Amino acid sequence: MKTIREPHLMQRQADDLRLGGKRIALVPTMGALHGGHAALIREARTRGDAVVVTLFVNPAQFGEGEDYGRYPRDIDGDVRLASGAGGDILFAPETAAMYPPGYRTFVNVEKLSLPLEGAVRPGHFRGVATVVTKLLNITKPHCALFGQKDAQQVVVLRRMVRDLDFGVEIVVVPTVREEDGLAMSSRNAYLTPAERGEAPALYRSLRMAEELVRAGERSAGAVIAAITREITGRSSAAIDYVSVADAESLEPLSTLSPGASVLVSLAARFGTTRLIDNIHITL
Amino acid sequence: MKTIREPHLMQRQADDLRLGGKRIALVPTMGALHGGHAALIREARTRGDAVVVTLFVNPAQFGEGEDYGRYPRDIDGDVRLASGAGGDILFAPETAAMYPPGYRTFVNVEKLSLPLEGAVRPGHFRGVATVVTKLLNITKPHCALFGQKDAQQVVVLRRMVRDLDFGVEIVVVPTVREEDGLAMSSRNAYLTPAERGEAPALYRSLRMAEELVRAGERSAGAVIAAITREITGRSSAAIDYVSVADAESLEPLSTLSPGASVLVSLAARFGTTRLIDNIHITL
Repeated sequence: MKTIREPHLMQRQADDLRLGGKRIALVPTMGALHGGHAALIREARTRGDAVVVTLFVNPAQFGEGEDYGRYPRDIDGDVRLASGAGGDILFAPETAAMYPPGYRTFVNVEKLSLPLEGAVRPGHFRGVATVVTKLLNITKPHCALFGQKDAQQVVVLRRMVRDLDFGVEIVVVPTVREEDGLAMSSRNAYLTPAERGEAPALYRSLRMAEELVRAGERSAGAVIAAITREITGRSSAAIDYVSVADAESLEPLSTLSPGASVLVSLAARFGTTRLIDNIHITL
Repeated sequence: MKTIREPHLMQRQADDLRLGGKRIALVPTMGALHGGHAALIREARTRGDAVVVTLFVNPAQFGEGEDYGRYPRDIDGDVRLASGAGGDILFAPETAAMYPPGYRTFVNVEKLSLPLEGAVRPGHFRGVATVVTKLLNITKPHCALFGQKDAQQVVVLRRMVRDLDFGVEIVVVPTVREEDGLAMSSRNAYLTPAERGEAPALYRSLRMAEELVRAGERSAGAVIAAITREITGRSSAAIDYVSVADAESLEPLSTLSPGASVLVSLAARFGTTRLIDNIHITL
């Protein structure tokens, strides 16, 4: 696997690949790669002649007091994992090359950026939309792959790619989980052993919610209350939110109607570690 | 010249051109083409194998109470002028194809969008940055040409193209003027004969300002006062602003120092018609 550091060299490489008629598949990451990223890269391998994995811890999507400074970094491990999963090019730019002095331009997806993660992390999706715009322009992919774990990110980016006419196919890959159900996340590395033991409560609560709905529960409030009880009753987690929303508009639902496409999502803190998870239910 | 209406067909055409190794030169316009646009298209002809002229009156860059509804439209005349000046493709999308229901994404160039035109027309440059992002993604040009008449637009778009890594060369073409000095503009068509007679006062005041500076004047305030006197003393125009600013940061200057790159710009209203003009002075 080839590593490229300079945006203009990556862009020239992308232009050359396209001129040669090659299909480019992009997997944007913040590094600290795990099995979830490996699944994205393997899927990209089936869809592109050239698989570009980007590695950039994007300061624009971290708020004040968040974990930008301590976000896990392990470029040697990342190169091994990305290469093993089928990556061709690792694009790992310096922060100063992505946001040079005098940088001023931001992309905002209105409305969809505001609830859920956006409410707890103001400006987060503005940072995500901006860096993904830059990465799409630099790597010129035919398709870009994202994990379902970041459900709102997928909704925001689908809208952005459609609105700004990027002409890039967004491919969403199912969340990859540990054996006990915990969604794979670079932030799992922050958990103490005790917290790690409790963290599967998140996915357990979501599966329980799905069973409730399959058994006929139609009140979003009842579903949210059951999830909250399951998490707070069986772990030390503090809940940021539990949401039952329309999977495309992200608007909160009060009733789960026939035909609805429902995103059940949550965020919770174990000590200082903030985790998210979600499931998608089609009625 | 070929006319394309559908964004996805234009994008496919652009992909085909690029695959064939062709250089694409873009001239974005709002139609009602005049000699200034012809100069842009002729310059594009020397820089590209395929010259794409876009024609789209972009609602996102008009404020409430502005002239969106009455902005001059003349597609037959536009086709003749663009074709005669060397255009290959006219891309003229419908508004609903550019901003379909549920549209949510906007590009903002912070700080540079706020003074001058941005102060009088809030949201204007957000609309410009957004539509140009879309047009760059749809037409995939190697270079894009803009007129110096819209000086702040050039500053905002240069910053945007650099910040978002579009990899597109921005080419700025000098303002084209009528014989009496009035900058060519689609909005000149709104002027009554009496207003048309007075309108050259704008450029006359700018040339006078340049002479003052060449003669040693270094006070921005004195330059602004002289321009204001010249316009209001010799015409019925109401001035929106007269500005002496750094040509890149657009920050107002109080003193014109050696080596400075200075943008002297103004906006004024003749009746309900709002005109802008500017000159660039390097000391």
